[in-house]
Amino acid sequence: MADKKEISSKYTVLLVRICLCSIFVNILFVVREYYGGEDYELQLSWSRKAAAEAESVAAISCSGHGRTYLDGTILDGEKPVCECNPCYGGLDCSHFLPDCPADADSGDPYFLEPFWMQNAESSAVLVAGWHRMGYRYINNNQSLMSKELENQIRKLHGMVGNAVTSGKYILFGAGSTQLLNAAVHALSLHHNASSPPTPVLASIPFYTLYKQQTDVFGSSNFKFEGDASLWMNNSDSNNTNLIEFVTSPNNPDGKLNKAVLQGPNAKAIYDRVYYWPHFTAIPASADEDIMLFSISKLTGHAGARFGWAVIKDETIYQRMTMYIGVNTMGVPREAQLRALKLINVVLQGRGREIFEFGYKTLSNRWENLSQTLSVSTRFSLQKIGDQYCRFFHKVRKPSPAYAWLRCEREEDKDCYAVLKAANIIGRRGGVFGAEDRYVRLSLLRSQDDFDLLLHRLNQLVLEEDKIKTMPIM
Amino acid sequence: MADKKEISSKYTVLLVRICLCSIFVNILFVVREYYGGEDYELQLSWSRKAAAEAESVAAISCSGHGRTYLDGTILDGEKPVCECNPCYGGLDCSHFLPDCPADADSGDPYFLEPFWMQNAESSAVLVAGWHRMGYRYINNNQSLMSKELENQIRKLHGMVGNAVTSGKYILFGAGSTQLLNAAVHALSLHHNASSPPTPVLASIPFYTLYKQQTDVFGSSNFKFEGDASLWMNNSDSNNTNLIEFVTSPNNPDGKLNKAVLQGPNAKAIYDRVYYWPHFTAIPASADEDIMLFSISKLTGHAGARFGWAVIKDETIYQRMTMYIGVNTMGVPREAQLRALKLINVVLQGRGREIFEFGYKTLSNRWENLSQTLSVSTRFSLQKIGDQYCRFFHKVRKPSPAYAWLRCEREEDKDCYAVLKAANIIGRRGGVFGAEDRYVRLSLLRSQDDFDLLLHRLNQLVLEEDKIKTMPIM
Repeated sequence: MADKKEISSKYTVLLVRICLCSIFVNILFVVREYYGGEDYELQLSWSRKAAAEAESVAAISCSGHGRTYLDGTILDGEKPVCECNPCYGGLDCSHFLPDCPADADSGDPYFLEPFWMQNAESSAVLVAGWHRMGYRYINNNQSLMSKELENQIRKLHGMVGNAVTSGKYILFGAGSTQLLNAAVHALSLHHNASSPPTPVLASIPFYTLYKQQTDVFGSSNFKFEGDASLWMNNSDSNNTNLIEFVTSPNNPDGKLNKAVLQGPNAKAIYDRVYYWPHFTAIPASADEDIMLFSISKLTGHAGARFGWAVIKDETIYQRMTMYIGVNTMGVPREAQLRALKLINVVLQGRGREIFEFGYKTLSNRWENLSQTLSVSTRFSLQKIGDQYCRFFHKVRKPSPAYAWLRCEREEDKDCYAVLKAANIIGRRGGVFGAEDRYVRLSLLRSQDDFDLLLHRLNQLVLEEDKIKTMPIM
Repeated sequence: MADKKEISSKYTVLLVRICLCSIFVNILFVVREYYGGEDYELQLSWSRKAAAEAESVAAISCSGHGRTYLDGTILDGEKPVCECNPCYGGLDCSHFLPDCPADADSGDPYFLEPFWMQNAESSAVLVAGWHRMGYRYINNNQSLMSKELENQIRKLHGMVGNAVTSGKYILFGAGSTQLLNAAVHALSLHHNASSPPTPVLASIPFYTLYKQQTDVFGSSNFKFEGDASLWMNNSDSNNTNLIEFVTSPNNPDGKLNKAVLQGPNAKAIYDRVYYWPHFTAIPASADEDIMLFSISKLTGHAGARFGWAVIKDETIYQRMTMYIGVNTMGVPREAQLRALKLINVVLQGRGREIFEFGYKTLSNRWENLSQTLSVSTRFSLQKIGDQYCRFFHKVRKPSPAYAWLRCEREEDKDCYAVLKAANIIGRRGGVFGAEDRYVRLSLLRSQDDFDLLLHRLNQLVLEEDKIKTMPIM
């Protein structure tokens, strides 16, 4: 009887314990239900499907050599397939294609992709079906631009210390691309119908789009006339207006260029898209009359086609605004929303995180490239020294976006062809108005692309050695 | 003793019950955890914050007279404030502003906003931080355009039966806006440097941007020359190329226009942005050489700045592609992703849902407007008849995007001013190359805007009656 009683009481204790445990687990579930998900108290409803879709697509493995996108090709009727880095293939991008050329051509800024993958949570944005359907921002004087984004951009320049924005206007465009021509348009409007078109100039080597746009748009108000230095004597002597593109840091050679032309009739458009701490030291806050920036080179989102101009003169600002309005009615609200989110992430980290990530990546690449070519007498690189950076508060090493390679041998007049023969695709010097003895090599692509480029260059340099040490027959 | 035993056994039973209940609740939690959320088996991680943010912003009440946006102005440092429809104010847009003018000016297509709010789940899209950072679509021959989106657009035209796309090229642009000038550019390239610019023409009344773009861009290749009909004798007699804009249905009057100019030198650009079943009957599948469409008038997302051209000729397609590339390097990938999602919703519903919603709204508005003005001798509307629609498979009533109002009284030469005096803002006829005796009234804005417009027009018409019945003094 005592035994039975003991057993019964043991069971009761066990039962109480189980009961307490279970209730405790209940409480945990309930607490998580109502206070869980950090500070996202809301239970998700209509947004959950889109979020799950995005995560499910992102979860597909592409072996670190590619990625999937929500709008990727769907082959099996289910999920999008991997989009592989150049020289990688197979369904999951795990297959290396050994004979494939090392692509160092375009400036696709995939070097920052890993940063955004690491910051997935803070950089994601959910666009509701009814987001900004109208043409204009109701709470921003019916403007085509988001006031919040403008404010963030001003904050950003203040934090980085790379441009003075106070007392200046800000105008958004489709990358810096659209703003380049908007600025040329605005500066050439003084033009008298009977006088010749305003010359558009740049220092060699220059970004090819300056010429291409001016040629394609065939305006009667302006015309690309090439090398700015040839016009130095014209710039203050007569009444001809001159428009000079100044790219600083320069694409392709990374130099912190200044306007060649001075005087009352010389108008400069400063293309400042590379003036961020991952690419260059920031010696001072730029304070030119027209400065162009883009998210493509700031956060690496070339595809977002979002850029902005910082403009001193009100008339120029209004003319440029008119141009953008008539050309595209502003920048898609989706691109503005995304830019807001991305710049917000940059601001949250006080710029340190992204710029350190970018600087580290690019300075390593430059160091590796320099080392590889240091033993070469056939190829040389542009010279960039260490420089004090007011953002990092220290002397920093070079970390340019591009290498401006020169083929030194007399016979290597076509440097592009020399590299092509070694299975490397660069961009020929002629494209930048320079000799074809130069080639631009992009250093801001994916790590896969850079690794292959370095490998192929190494082989080329090793061959040099072989030739040098070959016994004379 | 028996009593004690009984009580003890009762407690044990109660305990077992509590225990079972608790375990059952836990099982429910676990089941929901792993199989819940319909078919979104995934537990959300990095996307949850963005989703919660979007829902939290959307949950702010704006009394049905406004809405909040993720990128809205933040006043209290917490959440964005309501952006109210015109004539509504206050923090939650509940305050009606009685003296505020009825805005019927711009073509902001808010009439479809309720549709997207009703379809919140299927139309939301989550953009990951690393979404499409590069310039080009890797799996689409390095194009600037999403292949998936192109395929969806072809499907859409097939389903609606409003345009023949097979054997034709599709090119994306920043709304139809950018494509208008891309087309003019492409068609005027035959132009010889010594000959005068190619005339760009349109039938009156015409959409003002045709003129505005041509004027602003100041190309030496083309020039806006106004009324197409004045050039009818020129079009096949000599070698001058002529470019004619044909808007069908027409903005402002909704007519299904056809090209006025014929002959080998007359090139037409068909602006087909209103050729969707909410605005017009679809009598046949359009099959012109250059046709322009936009998501602004299809789904109501004017802010997305997404449009496309359907182009027959390969050379024209290539020239337009070059123009878009040099102008903006394509359309933001965010806008393309969103367009894909929205068009997908249209396709999922086989077009029925959105077109019926749109048609119902706009045909009701037209009916109310017609009724109001039917007793007026002072104002008249354009005539639009019922017509058989091959999409709806029935005769449908008129449902135009705009009313093209005419002031009939001899002295009412400035119809815009007449309406302005009655606190109604339209768009003056002169803007469309027509007499100022006409005014365009937008019917595709929000219900609030339309209601106020109707109310004010009603008052105007009532005053007519009063004047008519006033005793002669």
